[in-house]
Amino acid sequence: MSLTEFDLIKRYFEVEPPRQAINQLGIGDDCALLQVPSGCQVALTCDTMVENVHFFSGADPESLGHKLLAVNLSDLAAMGAEPFAATLALTLPRIDESWLTAFCRGFFSLAKLHKVDLIGGDTTSGPLTLTVQAFGIIQQGAALLRSNAEPGDGIFISGEIGNAGLGLKILKGYTCSDATSMLNCLDKPQPRIAQGLALRHKASACIDISDGLTADLNHILEASNVGASIYWEKLPLSPPVSAYIEESGDWLMPLTAGDDYELCFTAPTTMIDELPAGSICIGEITAESGLRLYRDGCLQSLTRKGYEHFA
Amino acid sequence: MSLTEFDLIKRYFEVEPPRQAINQLGIGDDCALLQVPSGCQVALTCDTMVENVHFFSGADPESLGHKLLAVNLSDLAAMGAEPFAATLALTLPRIDESWLTAFCRGFFSLAKLHKVDLIGGDTTSGPLTLTVQAFGIIQQGAALLRSNAEPGDGIFISGEIGNAGLGLKILKGYTCSDATSMLNCLDKPQPRIAQGLALRHKASACIDISDGLTADLNHILEASNVGASIYWEKLPLSPPVSAYIEESGDWLMPLTAGDDYELCFTAPTTMIDELPAGSICIGEITAESGLRLYRDGCLQSLTRKGYEHFA
Repeated sequence: MSLTEFDLIKRYFEVEPPRQAINQLGIGDDCALLQVPSGCQVALTCDTMVENVHFFSGADPESLGHKLLAVNLSDLAAMGAEPFAATLALTLPRIDESWLTAFCRGFFSLAKLHKVDLIGGDTTSGPLTLTVQAFGIIQQGAALLRSNAEPGDGIFISGEIGNAGLGLKILKGYTCSDATSMLNCLDKPQPRIAQGLALRHKASACIDISDGLTADLNHILEASNVGASIYWEKLPLSPPVSAYIEESGDWLMPLTAGDDYELCFTAPTTMIDELPAGSICIGEITAESGLRLYRDGCLQSLTRKGYEHFA
Repeated sequence: MSLTEFDLIKRYFEVEPPRQAINQLGIGDDCALLQVPSGCQVALTCDTMVENVHFFSGADPESLGHKLLAVNLSDLAAMGAEPFAATLALTLPRIDESWLTAFCRGFFSLAKLHKVDLIGGDTTSGPLTLTVQAFGIIQQGAALLRSNAEPGDGIFISGEIGNAGLGLKILKGYTCSDATSMLNCLDKPQPRIAQGLALRHKASACIDISDGLTADLNHILEASNVGASIYWEKLPLSPPVSAYIEESGDWLMPLTAGDDYELCFTAPTTMIDELPAGSICIGEITAESGLRLYRDGCLQSLTRKGYEHFA
């Protein structure tokens, strides 16, 4: 390959100038420049995906491009921020043009959907490692933090959980009739941007479910210094996940599997009628600390945690 | 090691709350939040360092922590921006506490010097890959771009070049009496923040020398659609670099070696008296395109370029 780093950037990444007014300068200088509207804050987040850790070697590059951006946009959604830009740090073992073309198709189609400009990054050679930093805008004081949940608040999730977890089991050999849609949940999660925006001034706390419901809800509980009771029967499960649990007895899976990228949020009961359509109440915040799970009316032990690096 | 990802973040990275008012929220939620003063823009940049590509396996972790932040701050300097924050995406093969302690010592001592808060990031397991994103603030319209150099402008550099290149040769076996200081230039470059700030409203174009003077000056020439003449005898070279050239005949080295992280900038001749102390004029911008190098009054051929990934 005689394509240099600069050729590569021009051919794949510097494809069009920024469209959002806030992005005053994009790729091509020492820095990008942002012009932030007054009264607004910038929300920013950063997620890395590593070959053989976050995805299998040989994974579909179009899905990777999508998911890499999606997991970052999901953090903006959890803050109630509106995306406007991203940077991409790409470490590649070699220049593989068909891989890059597919990767960019996945990345840029999601970027276009959410009006995200690619404004910078770095391209280096090395083991396949992908880092995105995503930027969103939010009115001052409107950000959805993890730290404001109050006893009595309801606990909600924005949609089904466990589908991505089942997708991972399918990759590892489990068979079911809805395999394609479960794999799609794993490979192409949709960041809940619209739901996050709709939750501003309504939710008291919010997080996205990346590491598993219990692990992520625990972050809210710790940050807010509260506890929670949740009810297994209220969890929104898809028919394939219900069938898997019936078959395997593994009813903890939807609580501990990661990668769903739904939002988990809390809201005062007075707000229930104003929450986005599809919000499912799964329990309530308590003054008593700790996370209690009830199933068939019985308190269950919760020992399995979410995914841990370096475990 | 039973240290989890979250323990690791708390022990090493979430060490103190942000000090800069612009950083309204740091590590610990889905996103960090920036409150940008009105009339200002945010400059942001992103650089990755990969083991066995940007540094040798077993490299001193304190130097790595310093250099990783320094190369990013250098991009802010080249824009004339004042640093205020950084994020860190760290991919580590394992948790090695003595490595992390030394890495953080290098990173945070430079961060403190330049009032940079660490406001976010990601920690993952995998081959050693380090990405920093750095953020600076700059008054609207004051950013030093690459694109405004004009024929007749002088070309300047902020200090000696070739020292880091000689450091690399020392690592590979070259011996000289000043080895320690040359290795220090390679391992612990100092971002030219003060010089960048002093160049606002004075320099017409600016870049930092990361890939080698000729490669980086060429970026200014291309972006500004101009050419340049530079004079080898005007290059500021340290005694060890001069000695190396005398000995080896390799007079192209200071022009093509990377990692110096001095600023290369252009300025109208009317501005010469107002430039920061230590600015060295090495040539002038021309309407005729191309980069011409003169040595002993003779035009030289410039075929060797800067460092290229994927070459």
